[in-house]
This record gives sequence, structure tokens and C-alpha cells, in this order.
Amino acid sequence: MLNFLSDTVTLPTKEMMEAIQQAVLGDDVYGQDQTVNELESLAARMLGMEAACLMPSGTMANLSSIMAHCPRGSKVLVGDESDIYIYEAGGASVCGGIVYEPIPTQADGRLLVQDLEKAFPVDEEDPQFALPALLCLENTHNRCGGKVLPIPYLQEVKEFASARKIPVHMDGARIFNASVALDMDVREITCYADSIQVCLSKGLSAPVGSIVAGSHDHLKKVRRIRKMLGGGMRQAGIIAAPGLVALHSMVKRLDEDHQHAKQLAHGLAEIDGIDLDASEVQTNIVLFRITDPRFSWSTFLETAKEYGVIFSEMGYGRIRAVVHRQISSDDINKAVQAVEKMLKDSPL
Amino acid sequence: MLNFLSDTVTLPTKEMMEAIQQAVLGDDVYGQDQTVNELESLAARMLGMEAACLMPSGTMANLSSIMAHCPRGSKVLVGDESDIYIYEAGGASVCGGIVYEPIPTQADGRLLVQDLEKAFPVDEEDPQFALPALLCLENTHNRCGGKVLPIPYLQEVKEFASARKIPVHMDGARIFNASVALDMDVREITCYADSIQVCLSKGLSAPVGSIVAGSHDHLKKVRRIRKMLGGGMRQAGIIAAPGLVALHSMVKRLDEDHQHAKQLAHGLAEIDGIDLDASEVQTNIVLFRITDPRFSWSTFLETAKEYGVIFSEMGYGRIRAVVHRQISSDDINKAVQAVEKMLKDSPL
Amino acid sequence: MLNFLSDTVTLPTKEMMEAIQQAVLGDDVYGQDQTVNELESLAARMLGMEAACLMPSGTMANLSSIMAHCPRGSKVLVGDESDIYIYEAGGASVCGGIVYEPIPTQADGRLLVQDLEKAFPVDEEDPQFALPALLCLENTHNRCGGKVLPIPYLQEVKEFASARKIPVHMDGARIFNASVALDMDVREITCYADSIQVCLSKGLSAPVGSIVAGSHDHLKKVRRIRKMLGGGMRQAGIIAAPGLVALHSMVKRLDEDHQHAKQLAHGLAEIDGIDLDASEVQTNIVLFRITDPRFSWSTFLETAKEYGVIFSEMGYGRIRAVVHRQISSDDINKAVQAVEKMLKDSPL
Amino acid sequence: MLNFLSDTVTLPTKEMMEAIQQAVLGDDVYGQDQTVNELESLAARMLGMEAACLMPSGTMANLSSIMAHCPRGSKVLVGDESDIYIYEAGGASVCGGIVYEPIPTQADGRLLVQDLEKAFPVDEEDPQFALPALLCLENTHNRCGGKVLPIPYLQEVKEFASARKIPVHMDGARIFNASVALDMDVREITCYADSIQVCLSKGLSAPVGSIVAGSHDHLKKVRRIRKMLGGGMRQAGIIAAPGLVALHSMVKRLDEDHQHAKQLAHGLAEIDGIDLDASEVQTNIVLFRITDPRFSWSTFLETAKEYGVIFSEMGYGRIRAVVHRQISSDDINKAVQAVEKMLKDSPL
Repeated sequence: MLNFLSDTVTLPTKEMMEAIQQAVLGDDVYGQDQTVNELESLAARMLGMEAACLMPSGTMANLSSIMAHCPRGSKVLVGDESDIYIYEAGGASVCGGIVYEPIPTQADGRLLVQDLEKAFPVDEEDPQFALPALLCLENTHNRCGGKVLPIPYLQEVKEFASARKIPVHMDGARIFNASVALDMDVREITCYADSIQVCLSKGLSAPVGSIVAGSHDHLKKVRRIRKMLGGGMRQAGIIAAPGLVALHSMVKRLDEDHQHAKQLAHGLAEIDGIDLDASEVQTNIVLFRITDPRFSWSTFLETAKEYGVIFSEMGYGRIRAVVHRQISSDDINKAVQAVEKMLKDSPL
Repeated sequence: MLNFLSDTVTLPTKEMMEAIQQAVLGDDVYGQDQTVNELESLAARMLGMEAACLMPSGTMANLSSIMAHCPRGSKVLVGDESDIYIYEAGGASVCGGIVYEPIPTQADGRLLVQDLEKAFPVDEEDPQFALPALLCLENTHNRCGGKVLPIPYLQEVKEFASARKIPVHMDGARIFNASVALDMDVREITCYADSIQVCLSKGLSAPVGSIVAGSHDHLKKVRRIRKMLGGGMRQAGIIAAPGLVALHSMVKRLDEDHQHAKQLAHGLAEIDGIDLDASEVQTNIVLFRITDPRFSWSTFLETAKEYGVIFSEMGYGRIRAVVHRQISSDDINKAVQAVEKMLKDSPL
Repeated sequence: MLNFLSDTVTLPTKEMMEAIQQAVLGDDVYGQDQTVNELESLAARMLGMEAACLMPSGTMANLSSIMAHCPRGSKVLVGDESDIYIYEAGGASVCGGIVYEPIPTQADGRLLVQDLEKAFPVDEEDPQFALPALLCLENTHNRCGGKVLPIPYLQEVKEFASARKIPVHMDGARIFNASVALDMDVREITCYADSIQVCLSKGLSAPVGSIVAGSHDHLKKVRRIRKMLGGGMRQAGIIAAPGLVALHSMVKRLDEDHQHAKQLAHGLAEIDGIDLDASEVQTNIVLFRITDPRFSWSTFLETAKEYGVIFSEMGYGRIRAVVHRQISSDDINKAVQAVEKMLKDSPL
Repeated sequence: MLNFLSDTVTLPTKEMMEAIQQAVLGDDVYGQDQTVNELESLAARMLGMEAACLMPSGTMANLSSIMAHCPRGSKVLVGDESDIYIYEAGGASVCGGIVYEPIPTQADGRLLVQDLEKAFPVDEEDPQFALPALLCLENTHNRCGGKVLPIPYLQEVKEFASARKIPVHMDGARIFNASVALDMDVREITCYADSIQVCLSKGLSAPVGSIVAGSHDHLKKVRRIRKMLGGGMRQAGIIAAPGLVALHSMVKRLDEDHQHAKQLAHGLAEIDGIDLDASEVQTNIVLFRITDPRFSWSTFLETAKEYGVIFSEMGYGRIRAVVHRQISSDDINKAVQAVEKMLKDSPL
């Protein structure tokens, strides 16, 4: 099976498995797991933040960070195409009493400042309005096909947010894909955010875990909330050890995924019945549509699986292929050939 | 002052004040206020529902009804231009752990079924998605300028909701304006909703109060929630008595407001520097823009006040005039003249 | 019927009904109801607080004040026999994400400082503990039989709370019963609280409404929350007008209720089969037990009703009689005689 | 250091570390981690439940199970000395809008049925009362010193709960300590519960993780909530693999801990200045007090640490020692000697 379902399917590397064996463990609920402490310290340093905290998932990383920023009854401004809004089960409303205000997402993942502006009421004293307390960006942007937010845009949004006195949280589940694509130190991106969540378990291939990073004050609140949500783990060093390998040695490798994604995009784009603009591919995600009238997106997914290729749906009938460490250049060729064959084979 | 701020500014009529004097009162927390009981019974009957309940405000009427329909962690589908979404302080997220999903609102107040459809996830078993549990319509639609939702549309939405197994709540703060505009019994409208809230204190001129109506089962839940929110009142008959007058004798009168609103619209539409399409006016709300370059919407509002006319802002720089019982045909003429004079007077 | 169910059953006085007629009304959602403004201003002044706000009920007054004091995830310390904990449907947990910590209530309504102390965790930095953010007292204390909290006790609690840096909210639904019983200006009591709720609709006989009073800052938050909960009312002057009468002219009268309560207690105490210590009665509430083996508390309540007297249950098989304006000294005698007769009549 | 802080400090065994290396991993968010599936299946079978689910912590296991049982606005009945009430940061109120009702805990960990009974209101229709929706037991009981709940008691509570139509959730963080102490199959205990949480990371020595088990229907809800809280993990097999070892081969070993705990209790009980009743020790937890006037509990803890022994505080000045796999019989002797020496050494 050629599995383009997600970069979350990546298995840990040998080096990661060895790191688990050698990890010095302790009870992290008492702050005594050295491996966790080392990971959190490294993550904070790499991301240019004062502090960081290990989380069991990106969902909890975003949720705890949003709850730490937003008091009960305030609004969090999120992209209407963001993972936070669509795929995280509404946790901020349930656990935080926070209102999501979805902002139109541009094709390249940006939320226009003029649209963000509209979320602020004419009269902030008027009690009928919930007030914005946080602005979230997603970088790279999943449902926009792995788009990287441009640095001048980040700067513009940060200035806007500062002027309106609200912080910026970056859902950077794939932030290292952004830094690799821009060929920049990730701190040149994260400097425009007050807090960030980063997944260790996507392209970086660690088995489990995400990081929240931000100020000391923010992280203190985040740790409280993590405990309440049930994210405090005991010998979490077995998660942190492969996470350390992920941060130390898996970042640069992401460039390979980006090359492979372009290879896939070019291959698929040439197939009749596939609608795909390869110039849109910036990182490791390829979005396309099946225009061949013999297929709906769902029958396409099912049939592709029979031909040994797993894709997923990404809204509005779009199909997503995520390239990752376990997909080689050769696999890409096989996948393109499989799709070609499948379209040839299918009865009229 | 000619006050077009809202129909909520209407003072109670003499008949209402007399009704208060003669009301048989009791402690409604123990169900012993006969006047409240009479009002709730009348309201249920008029609205074609099994039961009804008096509320201190439309906000609580909507909130308690949404909470009764929606379990924690579900989504309520609301228009992105609806009063529930914009003006009710996010109560369903705060008090109910419910996610608002704002649906694009058409110019005539409708939410397209194809847009509602998108709020349902591809896979309802997938725990990453919050699931829709309620669909809300607003009728007449405030921010769309008092538009009446067409009956065939209501039917279409009700069929869609039934097929998707979710109920429909109607924010009918001004539902009698809709029935009067359509010249129909209000039950021909409410039959497409599972619950409805109706304000007694807008065009109907009662001083305080709203009604939630729906099934016995729904109302039982609503009453529990009302108590928790703090809407249980003691000798609430002093509110219910004028509410009874409102339902008995103020409904037909709304037609007069609609005529006056058209008169106002035609008058203002002829003024240079005002952008207003009088054919859009269906009930008692008139929306327009100031295009005269000497004014912004806010300086227009301020200056108009100096000329004795109070309007309000209704989003995107639009100005709203609400016509009500205390605005006569003569007042309309005066208001039009005042705006004319003000535009003439203003320095270039 | 002699109705000792509650002082909430009191009907408005003639003076109150006249006040409604003459009230200058406006739309209080826009701050334009002069009668409401006058009531809020008077209440603040009488209670010695910076500001006050009218509420539809004591439940909302307590709930909004608790939510304004307590951030999400904090604890509110309440008496385990307090009305807030027992009779307000858990609103602070539902709407506020606040944990109730019930503290043992002494027979006289006090919460011991040593018990309050235990609610503070050994280590406030440890994220497994929710932290106290507010301490609530009830004065007079309903389920303790209308007991008045002693001034030195209030002082002790206020000092404790200040030392622990949390505010004190007083559920003063019947605070004027306390001030009258102590023959003190109510401000000599309220000065030990940071916020207070007072019911206009109990012994003071207004039909509807409660007051929250506190600092300007607190009240600003309370008003926001009131709007969200749905407590913002339009021509609320019809509620405020009798409330003004209640505050102006009904306070001193409470002494009569206290005398009548003592009269009732002495009368009932002499009846065989009634367990009642008349020396416990401090204000307008009388608690007793039926020890006659022919009756359970519930059959006693039912039978008394047949004899024309309405009492209520107040936990642990205790029976409560609340004396109020509509119970005269003569009514007391009749009630005592009815109970006597009922016990004589009942078959062995 | 002799670390009696908690059994959570246990490091994974060699067998566990090897199991991690050999684990077949997959993305558990898509249900594709075979090791997780195997663990959940084994846990369900061992616990006699239809289904089970892996959690990052006991806190999330309890929280998600409580939320799945209790609708918004209901009450969960918990022991006032339970870990759920004291150490889990109030999550059910914050995330679930659920009211905790703490019930007095007997010295042996039981909640008396007569006390549970009091949490049910006289009139369930009366909206002022939040209604009980779940009853929680803790077995073994941490703050009662590792007490095992007797089987007849479990039966009595289950019958009571069934009669009152509410389910029973068992916080069985240390349920296998109970089954070993009773020398019974754990299913003879869990059959009295509708759901149970079990920690893999306490005496069973797994590094991370807890299990919720219950009916299929309950687990479906629990999985939804786990996702929202952020407990969905990717290659969670690295946690599940040692968890499988824990369930397969670490249960019987707990008996050793129980013997050691008795040894420790007998040793400490003989020291002057220590108040300890060794006959109270049933499992792996020893509670005692320092009565030597030279020490407070906190100076005792500090000084003991200097002498190489780590204990913890367990409320009301009690000191807790938890025995576990990494404490040998020899360590016990050393610890007793250290405490003896420390009391001898200390200046008067």
C-alpha cells in the first residue's frame, strides 16, 4: 500500500526507537522526567520562546493554548478552513466557554486583516458583543494544500493584533515544513506569534506528541490546563525521547518530502480527468480534484485503494495526498502509474 | 426626538398599564401566577405549539431553547448575520458548551440549504467533528432589513432538517411582523419550526418579556434551564399582564408600522446622498447608506441626532431605522425633512 | 389559606402598584430607563457600594456575581446548606466552569474559618488543585432558620478572605431582615462583603427583582454577564418602580414579621408533637419538626394544608414557616389553633 | 533515595522496554495501531466489560467517563476524599458543566448509602435542583490509605444506584491492588460498576497510560470526548506495548507490595513519635502521623528527605508512603532505620 493518508502515519525511525531504550525516565507529573525536560528546553530554544510543554496531541496543544489566552465568554478568531475550527471537535467552546469566530480563509491560507477587523465590535463596551481575545493562524495550512504563510503577511497580522491588543497563536503543526520551504530558521517565523503548537508526530515522524511554546507566563497557564484536561503523563520520556530525535535530526529531511510532493503533483497533473495545478504545491501536501465523470471523490478514493494507493478527502470534493518519510521517489512513480492505470481500466 | 433606534423603545399602552393594575398575581416560581399562566397558554395556542414559557428577554428565550435542543459539544447552525450569533454575547458556547457554526446569510435572510448541508461532516462517526444538533432561522430578519422568510423556503428548510434529524428553532422576535406582512395566521409560519421565540417588547409594545413555545417535552427542559440562568421571576404577572394585551390587541396594528416604514423609505430614497431601495422594505425596518461624502455613518448618526432623529448602525456602515407604534405618519414626514435639511445645511 | 410557604409570595402593595403607573420608563438595554437608574443608584447608596444592577431574580444576581469574581476552573466556597449550593441548579458549574466547594455549615449559618482554610491547597502552584477564587456567605441564613451572621464573625471572615486574597460575596436575599434584627444600618453589615445580592421580592414585597451591588469594576463585569444570561430587560422600570418603594418604605416593617415569627414559634412550641425551640428564632423564619408519630413531615404538610395552613419542607424532615407582610398577628393565632386542632383530630 | 512518593514513580521493566521495540505500530487516530487495539481488547476482557479505550492519564480516563455519563447541568456524586474531587482540577465542572457533590467519605473509603440518598432532591421535577446522573467510587481508596471496598458494599451501592437509575463509575486507578488483596478475579469487583478507569502507570509499572472500560455505547461516547480533550494519540502503541506487559505479567506481583507495605507499617509503628495502626494497611499505601512535637508534617517530610527517604503529604497533616516494585524488603528496613535515626538525631 502507498499510504498518502497523512504524514501522521509515519512510524518512528530506528534512531527514535533506540532513543526510547536509552532515555532517562522519571515521573513527569512531578517534573522529574529528564528526557521530557530536555525536550521542552530544546523545543523552546529552537522555537525562540521562553518555555515549552509536551502534549499528547496537537488538539490538546491548541486547546490548552487557546484556553490559556482566552477568558470564558471571549472569541477566538480562527480561519473557517482551519484544522482548529473543523477537526478539533469544538473543544474551546465545550471546555473553555469560548466562541469560535470563523474568518474567511484565502486560497493561500491567509486571513485578511480587513476580515479580522470585522470581528471587533463597533462598541467594545456594549455587553451584547463577545470580544475577541485571540487570533489563530495555521502555518503551513492543511486544507489550503500545505501553503506557507508569507513573512510580510505574518508581520502585518502581528501588527494588527498588537494594535488591537490580542495575542497571536500559531497552529504550527507543520511549522518546520514552512521553515524548510522558506529556507529560514523557524524563529524567523515564530517571532510573529505569541504562542505556537508544533506536532512531533507528523513529518518529523515521532510516534506521539506535540509541543506548545510561548512565554513563561503563558506556559504556566497551559500546564494547569493540561493537567485538568488529562494530558499530564508519568514516564513521558518514552514519548519525549523520539521527540528529541525528531527535533534534532528530522527537520532538514522535510525538504525531500517537498520534492516528492512536487514530483507527485507533476505526475498526477498530466493525467486526464485529474484537475491539479502543480505550481500550487509548496510543501508536502498535494490537493486535486477528480473531474473524470466516471468518478465521484468517494468512488475515486475507494477505487484508488483497490489499486494500492490511499488518499483522503479534504472538503468540497477535493482529494488530498500527503507525502512523508515513508514515501520514496519510486513510490511516487508507482502511485502515479496506479492512478493512470485505474482511470484507463475503469468502465465507461 | 424622533426615535428610530428600535421598536424596543416602545412604551406600554394605557390598556397595558391598566392590565397591570388588575392582574391577578401569584408566585410564578411555584406556578401560582394566574396571569403568567394565562399568557403562556394564550401564546402556545396562538403560535400553534403545545406549550410556552415567559422569559425576561429574547436573549434568554433563544439561549434556553438552544441549550434544550443541543447537548454539550454539538453545533448550532446560525446565520452569520443573525442576532443570535452577533448580539447575544456567545451565551450558547459559554453556558451550553455549544459551538456556533455561522452559515452565510443571503440578502433576504435565507440560509441556503446547500450551505447548511456543508455543516454536516462527511463522516458523523469521526470524533474530530462536532455534530449539528439544531438549525436556527430568524424571521423577520433584523440585519437583512426586516425581511420575511418565504413559506416555501421554510418548508424546504424544515424538510432538510427533518431528513438530517435535527430540529429547527425560529428566532421570531418579530414573527408577528412576518405574519402581518404575509397576511397569514402566524401558525402557517410557525408550523415549520420545532420551537420559536417571540418578543413581546418590540413592535407589540409590552414593557418586558419574550416567549419560548414548542413541545411539552422541549418546554420542560427550557423551564429547567430558565431557572438555572436566573429567569424564574416571582409575581411575573406584572410582566405577563401587558404581554396579554400585546398578544390580544397589538398584532394587527403592526401593519401600520409597515406602511410607515415604506413611507419613510420612499421619503429618504429621494434624498441625494442617501442610498436606499424602497422596494426592499417588507416590514418595519428600513436600511440605508449615507453616500454623501461629507458623512461617515457615525457622523451621520451624530448629526441626525442634533436634528432630532435617532437612527442606529447595523453593520458594514449601514444605517437602520425601525418604525414602531410611537412613530406616526407625521413623524415620518418630519424625519425625512430633518434629514433633507441636515444634508442641505452641512458645510462642504 | 394562611400561606407560610415563603416571603416570596407577598403581593405588591398599593403604593407599589401606583408607583408602576407613574414610573418614567425607557429602554434599559440602552440605559434609558430612569426608574431603573434611580433604583440602582438608591440601592448602591443604601448598601454602601459603588454601583448596583437590577436583576430578574436572586439566582441570576448570585450567578452573575459569582461568574464575575471567579475565572473558569476556580472554586467558589459555599456553605453546604446555602441556597446558592442547593437551590440554584448548579449554574456556576454549568455557565461558569466553576467548581462549588461546599463547606460545613454551622447551626447558626456560619462557615468556620478553619473549614474555609481547608479548601486552600497545600501547594497553590500544583496544577492538580482548583484554586478558591471566592467565598460566599448567606445572611440571613435560610436553611438555618433565618439566622443573622454576627458582626464579629463577618469581620473575621473578611480578614481571612483578605489574607487569602479572595473576595467575599454575600447572598443577602434577606439582608434587611438581618439589619433590622441587629437594629443596625445595613452598611455596617455589607462593609464586610465585596459584593452582595439583595432580593426585592421577598419580605420587601416587590413583585420581581433582585439587586447586585459592588464596585464599579465588578458591576461592569456583572452587567456583561447579565446580558449573556438574558437578564437585560427593556422597560424594566415597571419592575424597578415597586422596587424603589420596597427600598424606601418596606425595610422597617420587617420588624413586625420578626415579632410575628416569635409569636408563631412560641405558639407552636407549646403544642405536643411539635419540636421547636422558640429562642432560635431571630428573624422571619421558623423551623420545627413534627415528632408526633402519626405524622411524617410530608403527611404533616398535606394535612396542615387541609386545615388551611401552608408550610414547606426545609431538608432533613424539618418544616419551615416563613412570616411576611400578608400574615397578621391574628393569622398567627389562627395558624397555631389550626395545627392544634389538626393534631387533636387526627386518628391514632 | 528510597522513594515512597507514589507508585507512579515506577520505571518500566526490561520486558516493557523490549515490548516497545517489538510493537507493531500504526496511527491510532485512524484505529490502525494493532498494539493499542490488542491492549484495549485485553483490558476489556480482563475487566469484564464490552469495550475499553487507552488514555494518556487517569485524569482523562475519569473525566471522559464522567462526561460521557453526565449531561450538562447534572451532578456527579463523589467522595469528599476522592482523588476525582481533590486532585483532578475540577475538570468535570470546567469541561462538562457538571456539578460535583462531595459525599462524606468513611475511614474505609465507603460512601454511605444514606449519605448518597441525600443528594437526591425531594422533588426531581423542581428545576431549582441539579439532578444526580452518576455515582463514583474509588477502589482502592488513596486518601483512606489504600483501603479495599468490600464486595457486599459494592453490591449495596450498585443496587441503590440501579434503583435510582444512575450508573456507577469506579475510579479503579489501583483496582488490581484490590483484586490481589481480596484474592479475587478483578471481574468479581468490576461487575458492580458500569464503567471503570484503571491506571497502567501505578503499581503495574507501565510508563504512561490508563484504561476506561465499559459498555460499547459508553466507550463510543468516551472516544468522542477523548478526541475533543486531546487524548487521541498517533503511534500510541509505544504506550500500549508496555501496558500489555503490565496487564499480562505485573498484576500478581502487587501482592509483594502489599507485604512490603505491612512490613513498613509494622516497622514505623514501633517508633516513638509516629502514630500508625499497622492493622489498617490493606494494600500498598501506608498512612501515618508524626506526633513527635519536634516535627510538623512538613519539617518531617523535609528532614526525612535529608535522611534519604521521600514521603508525601496526604491531607490533614497525614503522611503517605506508597510501596511499589522498586522498593524491596531491604529498602523497607533501611527506611525504617532512617526514620528511627532521624528522630534520635533531631535536637530537642
